[in-house]
Amino acid sequence: MGKLVEESNAYRAKMNEKILASDNKILKRVYSLDTLTYKEGALSSKVKEMLGLAASMVLRCDDCIKYHLEKCLELGVASDEIFEVFSVANVVGGTIVIPHTRKAVEYWEELNEKNI
Amino acid sequence: MGKLVEESNAYRAKMNEKILASDNKILKRVYSLDTLTYKEGALSSKVKEMLGLAASMVLRCDDCIKYHLEKCLELGVASDEIFEVFSVANVVGGTIVIPHTRKAVEYWEELNEKNI
Amino acid sequence: MGKLVEESNAYRAKMNEKILASDNKILKRVYSLDTLTYKEGALSSKVKEMLGLAASMVLRCDDCIKYHLEKCLELGVASDEIFEVFSVANVVGGTIVIPHTRKAVEYWEELNEKNI
Amino acid sequence: MGKLVEESNAYRAKMNEKILASDNKILKRVYSLDTLTYKEGALSSKVKEMLGLAASMVLRCDDCIKYHLEKCLELGVASDEIFEVFSVANVVGGTIVIPHTRKAVEYWEELNEKNI
Amino acid sequence: MGKLVEESNAYRAKMNEKILASDNKILKRVYSLDTLTYKEGALSSKVKEMLGLAASMVLRCDDCIKYHLEKCLELGVASDEIFEVFSVANVVGGTIVIPHTRKAVEYWEELNEKNI
Amino acid sequence: MGKLVEESNAYRAKMNEKILASDNKILKRVYSLDTLTYKEGALSSKVKEMLGLAASMVLRCDDCIKYHLEKCLELGVASDEIFEVFSVANVVGGTIVIPHTRKAVEYWEELNEKNI
Repeated sequence: MGKLVEESNAYRAKMNEKILASDNKILKRVYSLDTLTYKEGALSSKVKEMLGLAASMVLRCDDCIKYHLEKCLELGVASDEIFEVFSVANVVGGTIVIPHTRKAVEYWEELNEKNI
Repeated sequence: MGKLVEESNAYRAKMNEKILASDNKILKRVYSLDTLTYKEGALSSKVKEMLGLAASMVLRCDDCIKYHLEKCLELGVASDEIFEVFSVANVVGGTIVIPHTRKAVEYWEELNEKNI
Repeated sequence: MGKLVEESNAYRAKMNEKILASDNKILKRVYSLDTLTYKEGALSSKVKEMLGLAASMVLRCDDCIKYHLEKCLELGVASDEIFEVFSVANVVGGTIVIPHTRKAVEYWEELNEKNI
Repeated sequence: MGKLVEESNAYRAKMNEKILASDNKILKRVYSLDTLTYKEGALSSKVKEMLGLAASMVLRCDDCIKYHLEKCLELGVASDEIFEVFSVANVVGGTIVIPHTRKAVEYWEELNEKNI
Repeated sequence: MGKLVEESNAYRAKMNEKILASDNKILKRVYSLDTLTYKEGALSSKVKEMLGLAASMVLRCDDCIKYHLEKCLELGVASDEIFEVFSVANVVGGTIVIPHTRKAVEYWEELNEKNI
Repeated sequence: MGKLVEESNAYRAKMNEKILASDNKILKRVYSLDTLTYKEGALSSKVKEMLGLAASMVLRCDDCIKYHLEKCLELGVASDEIFEVFSVANVVGGTIVIPHTRKAVEYWEELNEKNI
């Protein structure tokens, strides 16, 4: 299993647990809202995860990008589709998105190897 | 025809013409790249326009939102789908996206009236 | 009653109603979460509204700034306190925050006149 | 004299006066620092104003863009140079910068007419 | 003493020294302005540091978050108060703030251990 | 040769190759547009790279900053000029830019050592 993916997931799980163990109700609701947002609806979960990915790329949040890439893979988004999400994000968000695209490609590759 | 839509389109057309009439090759390429990005590909134009809409919302660009709403309508995105794009953008981008959602809803309504 | 305040409130109320009248559960939850966030807790509502104001200023969202200024006034934030929130936002966010500070001062003045 | 320019300058002057009339020392220092930043140095004021313009464009602050356009004109930046600043900003910042470029071109035209 | 805290402080100190050793007056003033901003005033330093923290979170600057967390601890901000600042930042700034909240919680824990 | 510079360049080269090896035409065009943007024109490449650097700093993209610092060095931008670009970026973008300035100074130093 890929090292980037493993580390990212372990850290996310560990810290999410701590955040949810706190007494802060608002943060708990943010988490549950986050989960609800990507459920099947008028739009499929697949499309919604791609929306989340595009939004994360233009906001340039590497950890968010990783998360949505994992979900996209689970939901069957193909590599040429992922690259088209990348292309929209790079055009809307500019060349400032390129370094995040590099990391996204690296993570996407590792996710796909892991899946074999 | 709705006033917001008409004014937005007239201003956009007038200023785009001036920008493209300048001798700046880079800006011309940005414009043509923008057009190319949303063409049918591995993802449909419809999905790509929704990606562009979500990206524009989290980057909080009202004029970009208007543009993508028009394209979404042309490509047959339904109101419940549009609201799901809004919901992803509001969750990823936070309550800071709410004021832009208000304007987006107003514009979407006017676009739909105009279409009848 | 001040014109800026009246218009802002009327538009906000009208559009919020439309958004909440839609069938989108996620957007409704975003709205109710927004309300909950600023309730008295370990921190007072007053401090939380100032946090919301500072966050809105560095994210440069004029409508959000207006909203938090209204709440701050209701909760008894004084003018010299408001200006200190402005100062933190201008230092953290840079001179790019200045134009939003101008509008914030204008709105704050109108809110205070209205209150007399 | 152009209407956009006149209104922008009048509003800026009126509100800056109010901000500087407040007792907030930090905001006063932000203003004086802002002035100092663009003085001749290792780089010319002309280059620095173009840096300020590019930064304002990618941060998408219309009022800041207007301000730097005025300074650029005063310092002799030519139209083809301004369009090259626009091009860098559009490439780095993405198509999200286009709507701000439209307004910038409109303002630049009016500034130049006013100057005749 | 915690490793994250130590490394962060050592790097910050080393690089600040280099920046202040340069001949650039503007950068020096930015630094001194930064210090002044959080002094006791109409608002307490404690509140101002929480404002700085909230602003840093929605702007998603991990190093700035660390800095304000240290200051908050020194000024006696309690853990439930810190989590309420986190909650405001997550609601205003959206789920994009979650990864930064994870790092903030980790750093806050280490700061508190160090303090024992 | 400096470690930061070497690692940054190796990673950039490796990932750019992968991105350009994909079948995505839009991403390829973004790359070629990026190169074209900084060519000599009405403004010199040197000025354009400084514009790119200022834009990257206020958008707080460390990898973009590194790239433009390398180009600036190649084009003969002196250290006092670089620090003036930093100063404009810190004033326009606020103290949130300070952590990125620290990394920029570290990288600039390493680039200059490497050059000896």
